[in-house]
Amino acid sequence: MEQNTVVPVKNFAAFICELDKLKAVKRQITLPADGNRKENSAEHSWHVALMATMLCQYAAKPINTQRVIQMILIHDIVEIDAGDMFAFNEQQDHDAQAEKELAAAKRIFGLLPAPLNNDMLSLWLEFEDAKTDDAEFAKAMDRVLPVFQNMNNEGGSWRKHGIAREKIEKRNHHLKTCAPQLWQYLMTELDSAVDKGWLLK
Amino acid sequence: MEQNTVVPVKNFAAFICELDKLKAVKRQITLPADGNRKENSAEHSWHVALMATMLCQYAAKPINTQRVIQMILIHDIVEIDAGDMFAFNEQQDHDAQAEKELAAAKRIFGLLPAPLNNDMLSLWLEFEDAKTDDAEFAKAMDRVLPVFQNMNNEGGSWRKHGIAREKIEKRNHHLKTCAPQLWQYLMTELDSAVDKGWLLK
Repeated sequence: MEQNTVVPVKNFAAFICELDKLKAVKRQITLPADGNRKENSAEHSWHVALMATMLCQYAAKPINTQRVIQMILIHDIVEIDAGDMFAFNEQQDHDAQAEKELAAAKRIFGLLPAPLNNDMLSLWLEFEDAKTDDAEFAKAMDRVLPVFQNMNNEGGSWRKHGIAREKIEKRNHHLKTCAPQLWQYLMTELDSAVDKGWLLK
Repeated sequence: MEQNTVVPVKNFAAFICELDKLKAVKRQITLPADGNRKENSAEHSWHVALMATMLCQYAAKPINTQRVIQMILIHDIVEIDAGDMFAFNEQQDHDAQAEKELAAAKRIFGLLPAPLNNDMLSLWLEFEDAKTDDAEFAKAMDRVLPVFQNMNNEGGSWRKHGIAREKIEKRNHHLKTCAPQLWQYLMTELDSAVDKGWLLK
C-alpha cells in the first residue's frame, strides 16, 4: 500500500465511530453460547468474514478473496439506519426496505473521505446485486452461515418461525453455481433438519 | 482460488460453530449506542478488520492487506477459552495468560482440517509476536481502535479506570514506525484527552 499523505486521519473518525451502532442491530438468530440473546449484525459480519476465508477454497469460479471479505465486512452497515429485516417475513415491504437501505448507504459511506466514499458505495451496490462472481460468493456466505448455526442449535430460528425447507434452498440458490460442494453439503444438512423436525417439509 | 475437492465441507462445521462463543466474551469498552453494555470480542474483531481496510493506506512499509485482515479476524479467538484480559490490569499474571492463550489456540485451530489448522496457528503466533510488518500493523490496528472509541465516549474505559496518558502511548508504540501519520493523530487526540480530564497526565 502506498502511503497517502493527502487525507488527514481525522477524516476517518466519524465513520469509524459510526460503526459502533451496528452492534445494537439485532437479528433473528439466537446465541446459546450467550444466554440465547439475539445475535447482532456486527458480530454476524465478523463470523461471515472469517468463515469465508476458510470456505473460499470451494469457490467454483475465480474470486478475489480480499474484495469478497471487504464486501462482507460492509454488507450490513446500512442496517444502522434501516434495521435488519427477517429474511422470511412476508408481511414486510421489501421495496420500501431497499429504498431505506440505499439512503442509509449514501449517508453512512458519505462519512468517508473521497474516493473511499464512492468506492464503498459501489462495492455495497455490487454486493446487493450479487451479479459478479465476487458478490455472488459473498452473498452466498452471508446466507449459508445461519444454516451452520441453526443446525448447531436444534433448528434455532427455523424452528421458532416454522420455516419450510424450500425457503432455505431458494435463499441459498447462489451456492449451486458458485460453490457446488457447499450446495451438496447444504442438501444433506437440510435432509437431516427435516428428519429432525427442525424444518417443515 | 482453486477448488479443493479433498476436504469435505463438514470438516469445517465444528470450527464455524465454535466461533459463536467469542460473542460471549466481554471487553472493558462500553457501547453508548447499545445501552452502555460491554463490547464483545467478536464485534470488536469486525470493527478492527473493517477499520484496517480503511487505514491500511497509512502503512509506512509494504503490507499484505489480506494477511493483515485474516490476522485481525482470528486474533481474539483464543479468548473463547482464555477470556479477555484488560490491557492495564497490573494485578493479572501475563505469563499465565499467555500460556492459557497458546493452549486455546492449539485446541481451537485444531478443530480445522489440515493444513489450515497449522496455517492459522502460525498466523496467530505471528500476530502475537508482532515482529513482521503485517503483524505489527495488525496489532497496531487492534490497539488504536479503543482510542477512537474512548474519544467518542467522553473517555470511556480510560476515565472509568483512571488510565495515564503514557500507558496509551506505550500500548500504541507500534504506530510510530508502522504508520507515522496515525501516530501523529494519536498524539493530538491524547493531548485533547488530557485537557478534557479523560486521561491522567
